[in-house]
Amino acid sequence: MRLVLHSALACVVLLSPPLAGADRTPRARDLGVPFEGVPGPRNAITDVKGVEVGHSTLVAGEGKLVVGSGPVRTGVTAVLPRGRGSSDPVFAGWFSLNGNGEMTGTAWVEESGFLEGPVMLTNTVSVGTVRDATVKWLAKNIKGQQDWTLPVVAETYDGHLNDILGFHVKEKHVFEALDSARGGAVAEGSVGGGTGMTCFEFKGGIGTASRKVTEKQGGYTVGVLVQANFGVRHQLRVAGVPVGREITEGTYKKRETGSILIVVATDAPLLPHQLKRLARRAALGLARTGSVSGNGSGDLFLAFSTANPGAGKEEGLSQVVLLPNGRMDPLFEATVQATEEAILNALVAARTTVGRDHHKVLGLPHDRLREILKKYNRLAPPGRQEGKAASKKS
Amino acid sequence: MRLVLHSALACVVLLSPPLAGADRTPRARDLGVPFEGVPGPRNAITDVKGVEVGHSTLVAGEGKLVVGSGPVRTGVTAVLPRGRGSSDPVFAGWFSLNGNGEMTGTAWVEESGFLEGPVMLTNTVSVGTVRDATVKWLAKNIKGQQDWTLPVVAETYDGHLNDILGFHVKEKHVFEALDSARGGAVAEGSVGGGTGMTCFEFKGGIGTASRKVTEKQGGYTVGVLVQANFGVRHQLRVAGVPVGREITEGTYKKRETGSILIVVATDAPLLPHQLKRLARRAALGLARTGSVSGNGSGDLFLAFSTANPGAGKEEGLSQVVLLPNGRMDPLFEATVQATEEAILNALVAARTTVGRDHHKVLGLPHDRLREILKKYNRLAPPGRQEGKAASKKS
Amino acid sequence: MRLVLHSALACVVLLSPPLAGADRTPRARDLGVPFEGVPGPRNAITDVKGVEVGHSTLVAGEGKLVVGSGPVRTGVTAVLPRGRGSSDPVFAGWFSLNGNGEMTGTAWVEESGFLEGPVMLTNTVSVGTVRDATVKWLAKNIKGQQDWTLPVVAETYDGHLNDILGFHVKEKHVFEALDSARGGAVAEGSVGGGTGMTCFEFKGGIGTASRKVTEKQGGYTVGVLVQANFGVRHQLRVAGVPVGREITEGTYKKRETGSILIVVATDAPLLPHQLKRLARRAALGLARTGSVSGNGSGDLFLAFSTANPGAGKEEGLSQVVLLPNGRMDPLFEATVQATEEAILNALVAARTTVGRDHHKVLGLPHDRLREILKKYNRLAPPGRQEGKAASKKS
Amino acid sequence: MRLVLHSALACVVLLSPPLAGADRTPRARDLGVPFEGVPGPRNAITDVKGVEVGHSTLVAGEGKLVVGSGPVRTGVTAVLPRGRGSSDPVFAGWFSLNGNGEMTGTAWVEESGFLEGPVMLTNTVSVGTVRDATVKWLAKNIKGQQDWTLPVVAETYDGHLNDILGFHVKEKHVFEALDSARGGAVAEGSVGGGTGMTCFEFKGGIGTASRKVTEKQGGYTVGVLVQANFGVRHQLRVAGVPVGREITEGTYKKRETGSILIVVATDAPLLPHQLKRLARRAALGLARTGSVSGNGSGDLFLAFSTANPGAGKEEGLSQVVLLPNGRMDPLFEATVQATEEAILNALVAARTTVGRDHHKVLGLPHDRLREILKKYNRLAPPGRQEGKAASKKS
Repeated sequence: MRLVLHSALACVVLLSPPLAGADRTPRARDLGVPFEGVPGPRNAITDVKGVEVGHSTLVAGEGKLVVGSGPVRTGVTAVLPRGRGSSDPVFAGWFSLNGNGEMTGTAWVEESGFLEGPVMLTNTVSVGTVRDATVKWLAKNIKGQQDWTLPVVAETYDGHLNDILGFHVKEKHVFEALDSARGGAVAEGSVGGGTGMTCFEFKGGIGTASRKVTEKQGGYTVGVLVQANFGVRHQLRVAGVPVGREITEGTYKKRETGSILIVVATDAPLLPHQLKRLARRAALGLARTGSVSGNGSGDLFLAFSTANPGAGKEEGLSQVVLLPNGRMDPLFEATVQATEEAILNALVAARTTVGRDHHKVLGLPHDRLREILKKYNRLAPPGRQEGKAASKKS
Repeated sequence: MRLVLHSALACVVLLSPPLAGADRTPRARDLGVPFEGVPGPRNAITDVKGVEVGHSTLVAGEGKLVVGSGPVRTGVTAVLPRGRGSSDPVFAGWFSLNGNGEMTGTAWVEESGFLEGPVMLTNTVSVGTVRDATVKWLAKNIKGQQDWTLPVVAETYDGHLNDILGFHVKEKHVFEALDSARGGAVAEGSVGGGTGMTCFEFKGGIGTASRKVTEKQGGYTVGVLVQANFGVRHQLRVAGVPVGREITEGTYKKRETGSILIVVATDAPLLPHQLKRLARRAALGLARTGSVSGNGSGDLFLAFSTANPGAGKEEGLSQVVLLPNGRMDPLFEATVQATEEAILNALVAARTTVGRDHHKVLGLPHDRLREILKKYNRLAPPGRQEGKAASKKS
Repeated sequence: MRLVLHSALACVVLLSPPLAGADRTPRARDLGVPFEGVPGPRNAITDVKGVEVGHSTLVAGEGKLVVGSGPVRTGVTAVLPRGRGSSDPVFAGWFSLNGNGEMTGTAWVEESGFLEGPVMLTNTVSVGTVRDATVKWLAKNIKGQQDWTLPVVAETYDGHLNDILGFHVKEKHVFEALDSARGGAVAEGSVGGGTGMTCFEFKGGIGTASRKVTEKQGGYTVGVLVQANFGVRHQLRVAGVPVGREITEGTYKKRETGSILIVVATDAPLLPHQLKRLARRAALGLARTGSVSGNGSGDLFLAFSTANPGAGKEEGLSQVVLLPNGRMDPLFEATVQATEEAILNALVAARTTVGRDHHKVLGLPHDRLREILKKYNRLAPPGRQEGKAASKKS
Repeated sequence: MRLVLHSALACVVLLSPPLAGADRTPRARDLGVPFEGVPGPRNAITDVKGVEVGHSTLVAGEGKLVVGSGPVRTGVTAVLPRGRGSSDPVFAGWFSLNGNGEMTGTAWVEESGFLEGPVMLTNTVSVGTVRDATVKWLAKNIKGQQDWTLPVVAETYDGHLNDILGFHVKEKHVFEALDSARGGAVAEGSVGGGTGMTCFEFKGGIGTASRKVTEKQGGYTVGVLVQANFGVRHQLRVAGVPVGREITEGTYKKRETGSILIVVATDAPLLPHQLKRLARRAALGLARTGSVSGNGSGDLFLAFSTANPGAGKEEGLSQVVLLPNGRMDPLFEATVQATEEAILNALVAARTTVGRDHHKVLGLPHDRLREILKKYNRLAPPGRQEGKAASKKS
């Protein structure tokens, strides 16, 4: 019977998660959460040209945990800096706000200044599977790829909803996430690596957002994608409003045990040490949502720049463009703002989910959120978001 | 005439700055700013037993800048982890959120895990004077002090109000700050190293606050002292409320050029690597006030623990006590909360100041702050602060 | 035929590698290489009480590379700080001299100060397999083990001799390495993770050594184990003698492409920040062999202390013992010396090997080594090693 | 009387220290120490075009220590990356091998990727004086220099020979070092910041060396300057030969208490993160001389590149050139080699010195060195240095 169940699991159920930038489901700003700054056209990491995102979502089974059988609520998300066809490295930097997590490949990012492949997000115990499968995918798909590649694979823990020790993520799911990567709209919420994640004791998962700085500031875009799996309820702040203290139902945690992965992409021509600066700002956006980065949290952030194609070539000399440090402030602000919004987008998109052992995790109730924002005079009127018009223009 | 003026400068004018914990002047929570957590009895870094703070405040002259003559708006603040009489090192760790600043002595803090003397705060160009004078003071006052001590001296820039290149901080001011260090109430605002500092284009300076975790959590105290000199107006958030967008008068900055120094003290028995974790949380408290840690900002944070006296002895073996990582979350929360409040205390205490070249910097208007908090339904009723009762009990 | 070969591969051929501390094969000091300092009784990392080492060695096939079929020259080595039965974490710290490699789990080592499980060494593409299998092994074998463990798995590249993209390391080999871990003599050379490794264009692999400081210095032991896979020939220095310039046959590299993993164990009561200091000293031992830590090298070092059992408990307070920084110099010297010797032991133990595509890598010729040492008046007379007598006494 | 003496001290006695690259005094390779690699024409840091070095040397008084009176054996050395006339920053990176020392300004080097002024070397307690004076010198001499500059000032301890708490380094000496900076030959040994320094219990001080990689490798130059003040005798190795064990006279230390500052300059177009890699290699060159980087040692290294002038501009975008990571190995080798030689040059140049309290520190005896090298068959025949011919050509 266990085998039968397991066989059933092989059938991945893709639950049509909401698409960022599409009209189907509301996002945080659609609900009236007031944001600063001007988002890009899709308000997604894919607003940074070339960036592609793919998900493999595994949802199967219900009820009591049978290790190896389910219930399964997990997956893989792939972020490809220059898209599936490219083997051209990007400048990158990373930051560990709280290192209770894994992000492989960071020693080489730190040393070389380059991210040489995709960023893969999954659950804690599947890092190995995803890493090895990524090596294989690269060897097969990327011309001239060396066999000593050091993939970047990061994780958060979905064991509250998922049969995590069942090791349900397989090589094929990794390939699926990579092969399905696309620009354009990005599915959010309970999708890909975010499928089984929780956030402030609401359902969490994948979220994304972007900011575009003014032409005078360079016209650059900063895009952020998060796998949000952190926080205890009372900490949650939305646009500064203590929402977590107002919604007390459905809590289940004794202490912070989650994590958040934050990927920051930009087309601004930044060098590796500048991208570390950007990665560090993700912490400030996270803080705005109320996080104190608990001991149990793996808060690992990576930033890359799609500018300077060819900078990673191995022969001759590379010509690269550099944005002066003195012009980085708008990018810092953009990173903080987009990080805050990406997290809230994850919360808004993810809906109530029941998983392992009948554990039920509430989706952030949209109406309650609007009521509370109104109570604190922070509900943005329709069409009055700071970046709304600008967003349309983009 | 210049000489006459200069002579006048020798007369340090101490403008009776407000004392934290005293009744004379309101602090942020007295104005109704809602805070989380329970402060210690003085809501100051000196709530951590043994910690002493001293200031030397230099205020003299008015009008147009004459380098070397004034106007003078500067000073020195000394934080002594175990008080003036002790040469016993404390475990310590530090973090640079944005390194556009100086904090000497950090290589040894990082390497040894110890802070071996006071933390000195001053203006940017006086770091050298303060460092050398601290060496002398230690050689004279601390028995058995070695002559290769590596003092911790940090700075922010007060050149908007102060004749900074006049190098007005002298050895005697350093001695004054050290010799006047006391436990108990701590003067805030335009005092000591904070005398000429600005924050969100309001007058800034020294601020402090503390939190006490529950007895079940260990009953530890976390105290924070800041020298706040950062931020552009529109960024300012108070308790999540966009106060900086509501008060637009008196702005003068084109871009972020300031800095903030944050000193975190605790009596919790933390090891050096754990204190680095605490120092990193100061960034999250800073973020709550709206900072994005601009390129021009020297955001340098140091945390130390007064627990484990004798841990720094040079012979034999030391017995030390260690709080498990898994019990650090309340301390993280305390650090974030106390940092946010210390910054707001600096803003509330510092009053409108005119300095160099008639530059006028507004003190944060208390009434306007209250109005705005009320507008956003965030004005805490008198006696309804979360930690009020608890604070009284302490 | 390919299938047949592949089938054959399932049969792991363990080629009776030399045992450190056993009499069967000479080690570097047996050949007259002069060393400083006094080794422990086995001159191995297992001289640090509690440390256990296990290998799984995969050798099969010959001739031309058929990916997935072989030839296979690879494996896994496990280092268990407190032995197989313990789930008690050890204080740890790490250092990346050149990050062109992978060592998973380091974000948590850095953050928490603890190493919570074994250190696993393997080839580059098998990190994922080894990581996941280690998670399973821990879940099965260690009582109370949490399912969000973050294993430490590191790698060097064996593709010159091994069908690395054949992914021959399987879960069972990981279990074998862990289950076979023992104290006592440690097999060196072409064994475990070192099976396919090369060093200075000689055959490399696993090596180990130890030093015991005097009773007055605390009587502590420092043990080192390396997986040596680095260096171009002309760089090799043995005891300062330019051996690499004297033996020119058998070279095949155009540039440095290798790596070295160094594990430092001690029973000295060091805190995490002190163990980082120890890890950094491994670089100085490495330098003595002539390495310049080339761009292609993943030179990742981890140090742990078996002192302070129970320091990692999650409740209450831990009492720990601390060696003053001022007493660390003998441990620094011990680390440098043991690292140098462990590398030379790997070179002396590993014998000529033919692997993938008939690639032949010479074993360092013992006689030539002795001749060259003699030429430079550096051949240690029998029984005249500095630590010889002391070693016997142990 | 004290005042009279003090007045006498104002007369700086410049003892005609040996000039590197001049014919007057032998350097390490002139004595037959065998080195690898090809030095630049002066075998000095000034072989990197644009780099200028200036010293201020203070030598006065004899006999018993009277604090404030002497004896004085100290000074200041200034290294100006682009010479005195330039305010153009250079890309830079730094590394702390053992942080028992001070190097101010590193938080901003790390953050910004730039070194914006000179590197100043002096004694431990004079860091403050030198820092403030450097601020003044920059404000006066560099057009457009901002008043919030963060100078890089580093130190080692000369209290064994010098009245260090007498604070004899004054502003004028700092100006003298800066104003006298020149390209061309560099004085070595007991000069500038190195005046009172000791090394392996011999007289130490300033040393320099350089390497030029082949045209095929880019034709770049790496120059190194050290202020060498570290080591206990028995550790000293010269070209791998245990010289410190052969010369036992004149030792006086119970333990390592010194430090070494290493400045690495190159004209190779390296980015900040690559310069950190170079700085880290200085540790490997240091290790070749026998150092284990003792607890008492402040081993702080900084590397900069004179390539990419204008990269630090504040407006628009900068075009910069980047050497691929894959081409850095020759620069790593050059750094290791030049560091080793610079230290030995300091030892060879510095002669026996008597200072505070009649402390006498031997100069490394040249004849003994040659004898010992010969004994170990490592004495390079005249004109047979690897880089000799090449050096002439340059």
